[in-house]
Amino acid sequence: MKLCRFNDNRLGVVEGDRVKDVTAALDVLPAARYPFPTHDLMIANLPAVRAEADKLAKTAKTLALSECTLLSPVANPGKIVAAPVNYKKHLEEAQTDPQIHHQNQVAEIQRVGLFLKATSSMQGASAGIDIRHPDRRTDHEIELVAIIGAKANKVKREDAMKYVAGYCIGLDITVRGPEERSLRKSIDGYSAMGPHMVTADELTDPNSLDFELTVNGETRQKANTRDLIIGIADLIVFATSYYTLMPGDLLMTGTPEGVGPIVPGDVINARIDKIGAMQVKVR
Amino acid sequence: MKLCRFNDNRLGVVEGDRVKDVTAALDVLPAARYPFPTHDLMIANLPAVRAEADKLAKTAKTLALSECTLLSPVANPGKIVAAPVNYKKHLEEAQTDPQIHHQNQVAEIQRVGLFLKATSSMQGASAGIDIRHPDRRTDHEIELVAIIGAKANKVKREDAMKYVAGYCIGLDITVRGPEERSLRKSIDGYSAMGPHMVTADELTDPNSLDFELTVNGETRQKANTRDLIIGIADLIVFATSYYTLMPGDLLMTGTPEGVGPIVPGDVINARIDKIGAMQVKVR
Repeated sequence: MKLCRFNDNRLGVVEGDRVKDVTAALDVLPAARYPFPTHDLMIANLPAVRAEADKLAKTAKTLALSECTLLSPVANPGKIVAAPVNYKKHLEEAQTDPQIHHQNQVAEIQRVGLFLKATSSMQGASAGIDIRHPDRRTDHEIELVAIIGAKANKVKREDAMKYVAGYCIGLDITVRGPEERSLRKSIDGYSAMGPHMVTADELTDPNSLDFELTVNGETRQKANTRDLIIGIADLIVFATSYYTLMPGDLLMTGTPEGVGPIVPGDVINARIDKIGAMQVKVR
Repeated sequence: MKLCRFNDNRLGVVEGDRVKDVTAALDVLPAARYPFPTHDLMIANLPAVRAEADKLAKTAKTLALSECTLLSPVANPGKIVAAPVNYKKHLEEAQTDPQIHHQNQVAEIQRVGLFLKATSSMQGASAGIDIRHPDRRTDHEIELVAIIGAKANKVKREDAMKYVAGYCIGLDITVRGPEERSLRKSIDGYSAMGPHMVTADELTDPNSLDFELTVNGETRQKANTRDLIIGIADLIVFATSYYTLMPGDLLMTGTPEGVGPIVPGDVINARIDKIGAMQVKVR
């Protein structure tokens, strides 16, 4: 199932270029008072929401996808965890250019570990990206994002994929500079998620997906998730050796070679096989 | 006013060694359905909550503070922002001790910027700290924490302090190693906040507070917030030049010299003048 969030926090089932409005499926989620859950309640209750969405979809009002304002498919992630340089071809690129990286990349990712992006930097595909520091180089990075489906702590490798509820595309927009990644990559709007979530039962081979990012129609990044240095299962094992992942947490798996600057006026197209494509405008 | 959260998400006014239970003041906050607010609703509505708490306190049931289980004074921070090496003597100790810097360059805060700690690492004073990686050095760091009171974006220095709702003590528990700070400092329970929040109208001189951390009664860290390299106002200016701070976001201002390892069985006492003291047990 492809689930999108759109317009004024509506929930939709995406089928081709149409969206079925199944917002009423969210009624299965309880109301709450302060303090609110620190994880995403929809993802935590995804089977119940899906069952209701399936029922509603039969008679739901449909809209043109192109006319919907797409929000992040997850509204309340507790954290956005991201892998630094995690693709083999970027390793090769780095090995031939000491100005990019001074150390072996395999050692580098195992040495650097994972970093966090502020959840306040998250938005959907339709919001567009406002360049905050036009005086500094700001790059696009396309990534496969795994959406964590259940509380996950000290996970064993053989169990890891059970904790994935689904996938989406992520743009890890990055200001280059000496500061910590968790600062440079947390600017408002610099974590674009979308266009929708594809549930894990529909996308069973996340480790062999072609994907591509273009800027103004020109290919900048093109790779396959089979080239991940550390795959999704091992990223979950590694992350949960430090902290508990919760339903709705977003795991950005890293970007391949070809990162480059974006400037106001650019139009980014990001596409991952079996998920879909999203267009994000840069202002 | 000193406001604590305790036991089963109850709200209290702390007066000396007593707590007045004013939980009903939270009734001024609206219930919500998914998606929930991405900021802290109590802090966003603090004037209304305080007004109600003042009324209720006159006839409230009182409890012994020592018998309360203290939770983090803020339940739903959107992000925990923290300043690295923000006391000169700590910068010097970090640069000279290879067990702290791990061959990574320990740069000044102006170069490193701010980092994030996972909100899932947050807990109150009473929870205690479970050492997750007993094979690695794990250090205590005491910090003054500013609680952001209102949406703050691109703030000017002269306005910065208006965005502070109050203060609490924070322990930034840290695994030493080469990995990103946002990983090593985000282990479950490694952000202890407490013992309560002191509102900004009651604590008007945050830049001249003595504070001290002891382990098993022995002084390990002792300093004054006047020795901050970058003070609270400038931290807010810097942070909001990157991203929007929201009500309930926690700004950890950095730790002074004297950081050192903790091991199971240790008892940490952290005290900041005009805020109070909290005891945190290490397991």
